[in-house]
Amino acid sequence: MKQKQLLFGTAYYDEYMPESRIDQDFTLMRQAGMNVIRIAESTWSTWEPENGKFCFDSLHRMLEGAKRHGLSVIVGTPTYAIPSWLEKKYPDILAETHSGRPHYGGRQLMDITHPGYLAHCERIIRALLREVMPYDNVIGFQLDNETKHYDTCSPRAQEKFRRYLEGKFGTVEALNKAMGFAYWSNALGSWDDLPDVRGTINGSYAAEYEAFQRSLVTDFLAWQRAIVDEYRRPEQFVTHNFDFDWEPFHAVGMQPDVDQNKAVSAVTTVGCDIYYPTANRFTGVEIGFCTDLARGLKQGENFLVLETQAQGPLRSFPLPGQLRLAAFSLLSGGANMVEYWHWHSIHNAIECYWKGVLSHDLTPGKAYEEVASIGRDMRRLSPKLVNLKRTSRVALMLSNRSLSAIRHDASFSGFAYNRDAVMPYYNALFRLNIPCDIVWDDCRDLARYDLLVVPGLYCAEDSLVEALRKYVENGGCLLAGPRSFFTDRNASIRHETQPYGMTEVFGLHYDQFCPGEGYEPGVGHFMELLRLHPGTESLRGYQNPAFSEYSAAALHAFGRGKAAYIGADFEEGILAELFRGILPRLGVELPGETWPLILREGTNDENRRIRYALNCAGSALSYTPGESCTELLTGKRIAPGESVALSPWGVAILEY
Amino acid sequence: MKQKQLLFGTAYYDEYMPESRIDQDFTLMRQAGMNVIRIAESTWSTWEPENGKFCFDSLHRMLEGAKRHGLSVIVGTPTYAIPSWLEKKYPDILAETHSGRPHYGGRQLMDITHPGYLAHCERIIRALLREVMPYDNVIGFQLDNETKHYDTCSPRAQEKFRRYLEGKFGTVEALNKAMGFAYWSNALGSWDDLPDVRGTINGSYAAEYEAFQRSLVTDFLAWQRAIVDEYRRPEQFVTHNFDFDWEPFHAVGMQPDVDQNKAVSAVTTVGCDIYYPTANRFTGVEIGFCTDLARGLKQGENFLVLETQAQGPLRSFPLPGQLRLAAFSLLSGGANMVEYWHWHSIHNAIECYWKGVLSHDLTPGKAYEEVASIGRDMRRLSPKLVNLKRTSRVALMLSNRSLSAIRHDASFSGFAYNRDAVMPYYNALFRLNIPCDIVWDDCRDLARYDLLVVPGLYCAEDSLVEALRKYVENGGCLLAGPRSFFTDRNASIRHETQPYGMTEVFGLHYDQFCPGEGYEPGVGHFMELLRLHPGTESLRGYQNPAFSEYSAAALHAFGRGKAAYIGADFEEGILAELFRGILPRLGVELPGETWPLILREGTNDENRRIRYALNCAGSALSYTPGESCTELLTGKRIAPGESVALSPWGVAILEY
Amino acid sequence: MKQKQLLFGTAYYDEYMPESRIDQDFTLMRQAGMNVIRIAESTWSTWEPENGKFCFDSLHRMLEGAKRHGLSVIVGTPTYAIPSWLEKKYPDILAETHSGRPHYGGRQLMDITHPGYLAHCERIIRALLREVMPYDNVIGFQLDNETKHYDTCSPRAQEKFRRYLEGKFGTVEALNKAMGFAYWSNALGSWDDLPDVRGTINGSYAAEYEAFQRSLVTDFLAWQRAIVDEYRRPEQFVTHNFDFDWEPFHAVGMQPDVDQNKAVSAVTTVGCDIYYPTANRFTGVEIGFCTDLARGLKQGENFLVLETQAQGPLRSFPLPGQLRLAAFSLLSGGANMVEYWHWHSIHNAIECYWKGVLSHDLTPGKAYEEVASIGRDMRRLSPKLVNLKRTSRVALMLSNRSLSAIRHDASFSGFAYNRDAVMPYYNALFRLNIPCDIVWDDCRDLARYDLLVVPGLYCAEDSLVEALRKYVENGGCLLAGPRSFFTDRNASIRHETQPYGMTEVFGLHYDQFCPGEGYEPGVGHFMELLRLHPGTESLRGYQNPAFSEYSAAALHAFGRGKAAYIGADFEEGILAELFRGILPRLGVELPGETWPLILREGTNDENRRIRYALNCAGSALSYTPGESCTELLTGKRIAPGESVALSPWGVAILEY
Repeated sequence: MKQKQLLFGTAYYDEYMPESRIDQDFTLMRQAGMNVIRIAESTWSTWEPENGKFCFDSLHRMLEGAKRHGLSVIVGTPTYAIPSWLEKKYPDILAETHSGRPHYGGRQLMDITHPGYLAHCERIIRALLREVMPYDNVIGFQLDNETKHYDTCSPRAQEKFRRYLEGKFGTVEALNKAMGFAYWSNALGSWDDLPDVRGTINGSYAAEYEAFQRSLVTDFLAWQRAIVDEYRRPEQFVTHNFDFDWEPFHAVGMQPDVDQNKAVSAVTTVGCDIYYPTANRFTGVEIGFCTDLARGLKQGENFLVLETQAQGPLRSFPLPGQLRLAAFSLLSGGANMVEYWHWHSIHNAIECYWKGVLSHDLTPGKAYEEVASIGRDMRRLSPKLVNLKRTSRVALMLSNRSLSAIRHDASFSGFAYNRDAVMPYYNALFRLNIPCDIVWDDCRDLARYDLLVVPGLYCAEDSLVEALRKYVENGGCLLAGPRSFFTDRNASIRHETQPYGMTEVFGLHYDQFCPGEGYEPGVGHFMELLRLHPGTESLRGYQNPAFSEYSAAALHAFGRGKAAYIGADFEEGILAELFRGILPRLGVELPGETWPLILREGTNDENRRIRYALNCAGSALSYTPGESCTELLTGKRIAPGESVALSPWGVAILEY
Repeated sequence: MKQKQLLFGTAYYDEYMPESRIDQDFTLMRQAGMNVIRIAESTWSTWEPENGKFCFDSLHRMLEGAKRHGLSVIVGTPTYAIPSWLEKKYPDILAETHSGRPHYGGRQLMDITHPGYLAHCERIIRALLREVMPYDNVIGFQLDNETKHYDTCSPRAQEKFRRYLEGKFGTVEALNKAMGFAYWSNALGSWDDLPDVRGTINGSYAAEYEAFQRSLVTDFLAWQRAIVDEYRRPEQFVTHNFDFDWEPFHAVGMQPDVDQNKAVSAVTTVGCDIYYPTANRFTGVEIGFCTDLARGLKQGENFLVLETQAQGPLRSFPLPGQLRLAAFSLLSGGANMVEYWHWHSIHNAIECYWKGVLSHDLTPGKAYEEVASIGRDMRRLSPKLVNLKRTSRVALMLSNRSLSAIRHDASFSGFAYNRDAVMPYYNALFRLNIPCDIVWDDCRDLARYDLLVVPGLYCAEDSLVEALRKYVENGGCLLAGPRSFFTDRNASIRHETQPYGMTEVFGLHYDQFCPGEGYEPGVGHFMELLRLHPGTESLRGYQNPAFSEYSAAALHAFGRGKAAYIGADFEEGILAELFRGILPRLGVELPGETWPLILREGTNDENRRIRYALNCAGSALSYTPGESCTELLTGKRIAPGESVALSPWGVAILEY
Repeated sequence: MKQKQLLFGTAYYDEYMPESRIDQDFTLMRQAGMNVIRIAESTWSTWEPENGKFCFDSLHRMLEGAKRHGLSVIVGTPTYAIPSWLEKKYPDILAETHSGRPHYGGRQLMDITHPGYLAHCERIIRALLREVMPYDNVIGFQLDNETKHYDTCSPRAQEKFRRYLEGKFGTVEALNKAMGFAYWSNALGSWDDLPDVRGTINGSYAAEYEAFQRSLVTDFLAWQRAIVDEYRRPEQFVTHNFDFDWEPFHAVGMQPDVDQNKAVSAVTTVGCDIYYPTANRFTGVEIGFCTDLARGLKQGENFLVLETQAQGPLRSFPLPGQLRLAAFSLLSGGANMVEYWHWHSIHNAIECYWKGVLSHDLTPGKAYEEVASIGRDMRRLSPKLVNLKRTSRVALMLSNRSLSAIRHDASFSGFAYNRDAVMPYYNALFRLNIPCDIVWDDCRDLARYDLLVVPGLYCAEDSLVEALRKYVENGGCLLAGPRSFFTDRNASIRHETQPYGMTEVFGLHYDQFCPGEGYEPGVGHFMELLRLHPGTESLRGYQNPAFSEYSAAALHAFGRGKAAYIGADFEEGILAELFRGILPRLGVELPGETWPLILREGTNDENRRIRYALNCAGSALSYTPGESCTELLTGKRIAPGESVALSPWGVAILEY
């Protein structure tokens, strides 16, 4: 979706306020350059305090106030947190999970297959939309919020799963074979024998259930979209706030509980929330990854950042300059909106130290000042910065199935797909300033890229193996990480030589592997003992003398392309060294600049090249753009060879 | 309660003995200077082996034996551990808690609101008292033992909580507002919507439930007291064995599950158990804190130490001299009784390595020898040491509500009120030999003190804020630690400038804070970025250059008084340095002696000044009392300027 | 059971194969020198896919294939993993345990007292045996697999326990006294008051329940044996695959959940599985201990290793040479069979990285090559190596009761009988090359040994104390570790002087003990302050000056024997030093060679002395046998004084 201007704003909760402050707050927002708020996504109990009794007073207060102050509004459906009366009505509405059924209190605990939940969702959505539709400052809708499957294992969900399995496998014999159920006497004689999924020791089966659970999310969002479509005007967008996998308080890799690649079809415009570490833990890599992923969900279209941190959470309190650095980092990845979570710090409950733009005292402070300075720049530079188009010659491939298989394969204990397979590879690219798209394992349009990176591609279905092989044969370059190609689409280990289907491509094979600990310094969970074929070049060996005959990483020409394989999860320094050596061999030119100086660029609506220079460090840097350009924040012309000074956590935006 | 003499004794369990040894044991006790035993508080199943069938044989054996041997007796009501038949009768008698319902076996697991429990309690108490009353060597009664609420969350308790809330808040609207229930759709439409408390993500609500649970303890003890009052003679005291918060095996701060300040009204004489670390972990600070707290529960009255360790628990095995040091440390804090737990080591079950005065072989060993030497000194010096009156010009304020709010506010993860807020401040005072009273947050009689220390006063109700403000205005000195004044009595964060209501008093305000990790060395969980007002003196800044404009601790004159505010939870060394600098500025003179030489003093019945010199270290020390005095243990006169030698873990008692 | 030849083979699962590969696999086995497979022990759902519907196709395929290829077969009863339909039929068939009832999925989760389970077990066993009996290449049967009690706490099991208690103690009064139930009001008024065992805080009671649970295993295996006996031919053996206690992925000490000393009566031939650490964690000590234990179960008879690792588990991936070293280490301990788990790596589920002889690609790799080289040597040397008889003058005594008492006594928190009491003592002997038998605490035939080592003998019943006393009196030597003799057979602490009943034997006593931490460097959980009697020699004291009057280890002559007592769990280096000093004083000559050169020897069928020289290190060693002998692997004659070179992880087998 092409936008007319950058959106800049915040989530707003009149409901949480000690008293209504709308005019005061909206005035402050406007003064900070804001032009949009998001409302309503979490306050069902306010709109419907009793079953069937609606009260939209604060909704109208906010919508009218926004109109009065010239703010656009994104309205969320309030279905991700249910009122207490709904749980009283349906005691089974909270999802039974692997850990049992929770008590009421938190959000995102319900069984999204529960008919009572769905019926009440539909009623509140329709009631809300009827109220909202008269307002022409409502520019779009957000379906639910950070929707996931909440690990529902209710009998209802499991009955659906049975039908899903019957549909997919036909007979129990086929299921037994696909899952290897003969092991430990798990083979089924009939569909009625299907046991509760929660006890399974079979990673293929657990991963299949997880895939099924993810499909529930896709269905749920599509179902909400259909309701919203009955009401919305054509120019109003529909989005969803996708989140990512979480290390405590910040994003790390893709969201495991949603097939975002599928679920995205429920929206017209991609939205997401991006939380990142701050202080000396700020690296930029989390923002880089998340924006690249979000941008990829609709083939490079710009997207909305529906939430990003203001002053919280506590341990991600931003140092001076970091909010500014983050905001422009988001734009540099293709965001068309930066929206803070949230306006005012909350005075109660679990997120009360996840502070907003205003602190609890509700008066403008340091964060507000920095936000306002960003807002002024964004408003001024909006025509230059909106609708940035990026292109990448490199793509990194994600795989939900691999994530699930790795998570449920006991052998990977402590090894996480996102943290240990994907992020190290993304990080290595990011720090070398290699622009990168994120693609998914159903992508077959591979020839768009010069280099395809496949970290931790543990499950690779036959058609993907074939596609990757052809891709290289036809001139593509491929870089794979350890454990890739090991299993089929059901996470059954292949019976053939590893890497399955790719031994000729990589010019090697192996049948032995072990962990690093006790075997090799600098290796984490896995090291494969690679045997190279004639003509394959070893890029690195192992230090352990018992393994002197094996390679740890190798490069091979295949067809018109090249393929590199790294057989171990090396620590960051070794991986960086390998990447610096491999990438030029795979046709990727390394820019001279490296982290902490991050360069990200694209083309704007005027077809001018915009380059963001981002100083991801707490000390000053200088950057020499080379060509003549204009630094947009200062308006200063930069002559060829002239340098731009970057303060700690500083930003420059260069127009060529 | 003024006592005629020091009490010295032990808990005794004829019931646990392989065979009755009463004459043998009581003779040994008398030889060790003991004059009191405590019995009966945990052996309900012995007194009532079957429902309604009583057997008091061993009770009479003990009471008659005690009479024969001249021992006084404290009789406990045996209600803190129920017999198995009672649990069989009422399968719901064990409390449903946040972790579910336990199996029978341990003590202190029952629902103290259960009518069946209460009815059977009453019957056994009455039956026991009827047996006991004829004995005139029974000097007092102990109600139950270390009573707590055992986290009861039974439907019955939650129904009582609903009525408690209705009584307190009147309407659900008022409750919604006080708790901030609009957040995440938790607002209630009617009282019937009140969800199970166990799922709440609202710290205010969780803290309120905890306050309610504490009130159950107050009620329970008062109810037992009323029963005992029907029987006891006027000269017989009623006490309770209050315990403290626990680090594994020793006390640390106040007991979180009891409002001791309220519950104490059930007793005529305060009692408590005090367990402390030993070997090189012995510092004296735990004994100091617990005695100061116990003494404060009834406005400075002397109290009974109903339990303290003999040879156990295992990891608190005392080095030679430490039992003696501990016993006199207890007296120096105002104890009128030292009673060991327990006489003989138990041969079975969970506390069998929590050894008594006698080891499992039931013969006098090293511990007995040391105990006997203490007993002889106590007997001899009783007239000098009994009824010690202490006075302090400094008080430290405790707050149950702050403890609960901090515990249930997810943002404090890992930060504990007792361990991280209170004890560091008490410790800093203790090591500087500043005598200190413990007061509670309902104390309004503040002018008694020159200096009031309020660590971690996270919840401060309006009337307290007002009182503290007036206290300083009128000439008092105030020292506050980080996070103080942040929330109201409902643990709702204030909407106003922080520290709430006290910005003029401290001459500063702040709206930004972050953790130490990643931001500042020497800081733990929190650092507030203080902005000083004109005239306020900064006592310390932060090292992080990003925070160079803020203060970390400051001093300010207000009215006729002074107020200091410390904005971060600094590590021990930095805090000690701050205290050494601040205290003289707040009118507190620092004695020359510091830990490990601890000095504690008071006035005895003869109105003579008694000073305990306690060597809390494993190497010898010498102490020069200055004035002329008598060392009571040796009877030696000390001339002005003469020194007293203190052996490792040694004690001197000086009479002036 | 004397065998005609060494058995060498692998577990085989036609059921788990993607497609039947019997001829291919069995040919490879034969080429690798294998002569036996084990089948059927875990695939009930294959044999009986629906209730009462049997299908033995793959069974016959394997048996006929084995016949065709000249392989013997051991057939397991498939009862340790139940089919899903059986759990559907009996929803209570999975055991309720201390952690609740699991979901279906894993193996070894059922209640082995469940009548429905037993009835279905019997039917499948009989059905299987009827199919199997016609095959004359079936040489034996394995009852179930690694049977344990799975912590069954079902009402049924607890009702059996009540009858067990009634049988053992007669009255509740006797039970109350034996268990010390008066403590915390746990005394019972009638048998009907017996509470659920899962809540107990009484270690004696918990240990008694554990003893009862172990008796269920004994009964279960005996019951299976009786069924098998109805079918088997006299020359067919009956075995069971006993396992050991587990550190993650390898054995450490005896199996806590089975009384192997009793359960062994269900088999004609002892079997076990032995998994050991690899890479630099390979020491040989685990194999040493397990083989010594297995050999001792039937008075020195040879035994079968039914499982040992091939290429797995992942973190025990063997370095080149370690499979060979392990195989001969097993023989050196008295094994007559080495059988790998398992032939082919599995392609699904929880053990898919617990790799077999073949990797997942099902083709011969490095592991196969090493296995084949072992197989060739075993086949060639079988007449020399089969039926090795070992003799030891030293025995180490194990005690199930001590293990349970230590496990359930809260005071031992973190101290494990196997890891912290037994293995350090075994390890010290092993590394000094002292041959050692394993005996149990019901052994009274002690005079067979010159030295008896009793580590962690926490429970010692009266008759054992008496036997040990007499043993020393009559000239035996005894070496005891800390906490020994502390409790009686019910894990009640003795009321008498410690070490109970042995103070005259060891010439010492003590009544004080504490942990090492905070008290003494080099000590773990316990140090006893030993007071020596006149004539007792102190071997070591404590460094803590507060304990200068006590001894830490001492030696004493008693009667015609000698007794040494070590009072603390010292770290490995100190313990080794103590052992080197003590053993010669107790009449045990120390060989010159020590770990990593391990020497183990015995006598073969030709009455020749066979000595294994095992290099348990990754660097080369040389060994000088002294006398003239023949190295069997190379056939080389070794002259007196000549050396044998041992490659890293190398083996030599010397025939004298």
